[in-house]
Amino acid sequence: MALDFSSAVERTVTPEALIGARYRDGTLATGPWNEVLSTLLAHRSVRAYLPDPLPAGTLECLVAAAQSASTSSNLQTWSVVAVEDPARKARLAELASGQKHIVQCPLFLVWCVDLARLRRAAEERQIALEGLDYLEPFIVGVVDAALAAQNASIAIESLGLGFVLIGAMRNHPEEVAAELGLPPHVMALFGMCVGYPDPAVATGVKPRLPQRAVLCGERYSGVPQSEAFGEYDRRIREFQREQRMPEIDWTQQATTRVRTAASLHGRDRIRQALEILGFALR
Amino acid sequence: MALDFSSAVERTVTPEALIGARYRDGTLATGPWNEVLSTLLAHRSVRAYLPDPLPAGTLECLVAAAQSASTSSNLQTWSVVAVEDPARKARLAELASGQKHIVQCPLFLVWCVDLARLRRAAEERQIALEGLDYLEPFIVGVVDAALAAQNASIAIESLGLGFVLIGAMRNHPEEVAAELGLPPHVMALFGMCVGYPDPAVATGVKPRLPQRAVLCGERYSGVPQSEAFGEYDRRIREFQREQRMPEIDWTQQATTRVRTAASLHGRDRIRQALEILGFALR
Repeated sequence: MALDFSSAVERTVTPEALIGARYRDGTLATGPWNEVLSTLLAHRSVRAYLPDPLPAGTLECLVAAAQSASTSSNLQTWSVVAVEDPARKARLAELASGQKHIVQCPLFLVWCVDLARLRRAAEERQIALEGLDYLEPFIVGVVDAALAAQNASIAIESLGLGFVLIGAMRNHPEEVAAELGLPPHVMALFGMCVGYPDPAVATGVKPRLPQRAVLCGERYSGVPQSEAFGEYDRRIREFQREQRMPEIDWTQQATTRVRTAASLHGRDRIRQALEILGFALR
Repeated sequence: MALDFSSAVERTVTPEALIGARYRDGTLATGPWNEVLSTLLAHRSVRAYLPDPLPAGTLECLVAAAQSASTSSNLQTWSVVAVEDPARKARLAELASGQKHIVQCPLFLVWCVDLARLRRAAEERQIALEGLDYLEPFIVGVVDAALAAQNASIAIESLGLGFVLIGAMRNHPEEVAAELGLPPHVMALFGMCVGYPDPAVATGVKPRLPQRAVLCGERYSGVPQSEAFGEYDRRIREFQREQRMPEIDWTQQATTRVRTAASLHGRDRIRQALEILGFALR
């Protein structure tokens, strides 16, 4: 365990180094490999951006990647709003606990669950869509939007750009909807800062739980999860030390994040907000 | 529009052909490009598999890709169950409207929202997690699971394998949970068939809505969506003709899919099922 994983952030490093950095474990075997896997494994969130604009055609390229993702029954229940106006980014940042990378990045994408498009298509055919009032199509929309956004994020990193997802778009759902002119039945699921990473601000590959804590064969078992907690807490502390972050066990940090209604930063009222935005969630 | 997009399914084709096939529009410009984008753009769902097993190390490679995706506050609120047992696959197929590719594929992955792991970590610290009883952490789990699964799906296609997502894992949530031994606070979000595509069964790149129907600049607008419906209906019919599928407008097919509670194939009771599985969704 004396290996140094702190520099394993370049796509040119070996599969062993990338797997090793992701799990902070130098003993793991690697299977088949290619450039796409290197891109996937090298992911790290970027919270400091250069002011440089994106190359022409980048946005359209990201959206083409996003639309190439799977979508339930081809319903395509998502939309994306591309925000570049500095004043609008500043207002959105304020609605997201003041995260300054939203202002700093040249492009801020807001990925939305969109059940309004199907309603519009139905209105043209003069039919009512009773089925959209259930929780199920909302789940479909969340999955569709996330699959699409993840494809965009892979495209972003493949182009040497960086991103970070902003869940805080859900802190004030109605205000975000008003800012973006979202009609009823559309909800901002999360934001995504996009831009060139500032090379002066180093970021590391964040280690994840050991595989046995998330992967089960044939049937679910919680036992390997509990066994993995101590190991993971040690590895995450090693990462925090390297990044000069305060040291804290994952089990403590993660459980604190969801401990009470107040820990959710206003998102404890998201069901109410969704109802106001037109999602019946029956 | 006399271009032939039916064969634009190989990753070796040009960016123009891939973009052209995705939108059935030969007039679109392409921006920056690379092998990763080719993999993303070439996606097509596979519903016919060879019986060949996957190379050693493939599953671990897919899970490493999945764990490299973003996760809200590093909570990692998902798990995946890898099913290879033919009898279990047959029972899961039966719970998913008899989709025979679930039986046929050598590996069936079930991607789960997992709020049980955080509860287990909290129990060891003897604290209660009131915050998990809200809709918000369920949304986090759905997003986390979808981001992870999408990374796995990109890894799958980069390796020359194919996949298709199975939303019908939500048709009978309690029965699927029982089959997989899922504890309370864990829910099967969707399945994923994985295997070598049967080359005897041709599949095409499915065209998506024109970009202006999903992408808005600065603020949302529904007008370009309505304008795009007719164009898309024509393009999807062209695709259906080529694939020898019944011809039907997207606006008709998509709205029919969510028209009534009965159209949801039992998923109109998913909120009730989730409550039974321990998700309070306050």
